[in-house]
Amino acid sequence: MTVRAILSLKGKDCVTIAPEATLAEAARLLSEKRIGAAVVIGPGQRVAGILSERDIVRALSKHAAGALAQTVASAMTREVVTCTADETIPSLMQRMTAGRFRHVPVVEHGRLAGIVSIGDVVKHRIEEVERESQALKEYIATA
Amino acid sequence: MTVRAILSLKGKDCVTIAPEATLAEAARLLSEKRIGAAVVIGPGQRVAGILSERDIVRALSKHAAGALAQTVASAMTREVVTCTADETIPSLMQRMTAGRFRHVPVVEHGRLAGIVSIGDVVKHRIEEVERESQALKEYIATA
Repeated sequence: MTVRAILSLKGKDCVTIAPEATLAEAARLLSEKRIGAAVVIGPGQRVAGILSERDIVRALSKHAAGALAQTVASAMTREVVTCTADETIPSLMQRMTAGRFRHVPVVEHGRLAGIVSIGDVVKHRIEEVERESQALKEYIATA
Repeated sequence: MTVRAILSLKGKDCVTIAPEATLAEAARLLSEKRIGAAVVIGPGQRVAGILSERDIVRALSKHAAGALAQTVASAMTREVVTCTADETIPSLMQRMTAGRFRHVPVVEHGRLAGIVSIGDVVKHRIEEVERESQALKEYIATA
């Protein structure tokens, strides 16, 4: 099973924000949409970074109230790990667990094609392993 | 496998904060410890709530810079779902997925005995299901 299976269920919608937006605007966006991170889209619709709740809390911790007027660009994670829709779910899960990140933008032909969270990945992976286990049990029962 | 197996690996340490602390202090604590939530401990060492990165971002979104001077008590989640060390991992994972929360304090005899995250739970659950699957495959191969 690949990332495409997740996107086909949850859709390709993905909340984005501009690098010039302020962290105050970003906090409102994440709260309103009830999400943990937004993809930062720069010139030419390319993925410039990702901004998570953790990035906002870290900026607050460093700059107190001054953080609110800072730009998304100043607080975002620039080294964004992305995936394609063709990556397998075990492969992506392994990368997310090892790198300790919770959100991965899906990029196709240089454009954003969705976002998957660790919750999405885990849900699908567990279903997959449980199906495999069930199939093995049925095989044993009928052998 | 139960929650006890997770605690025996990660330990019973748990970052706590007082309900009277400010959100500025809470942001510093979460950033320094590199964690997503702290357990709020009230009078008599009882669990009074849990304060996550999400709670801080939500307070910022509502109150802008004013949020920083607010108390942890004003922003924390009061309805804390807890577990015991004897709860099975599949049972806890099901509750966390259904309720969409990421951290569960472990309470024993009314006292905090650790905290488990969705990451801890998922890691153990996947290992458990993969071991089961491996055992079934070996059974088939040798039958």
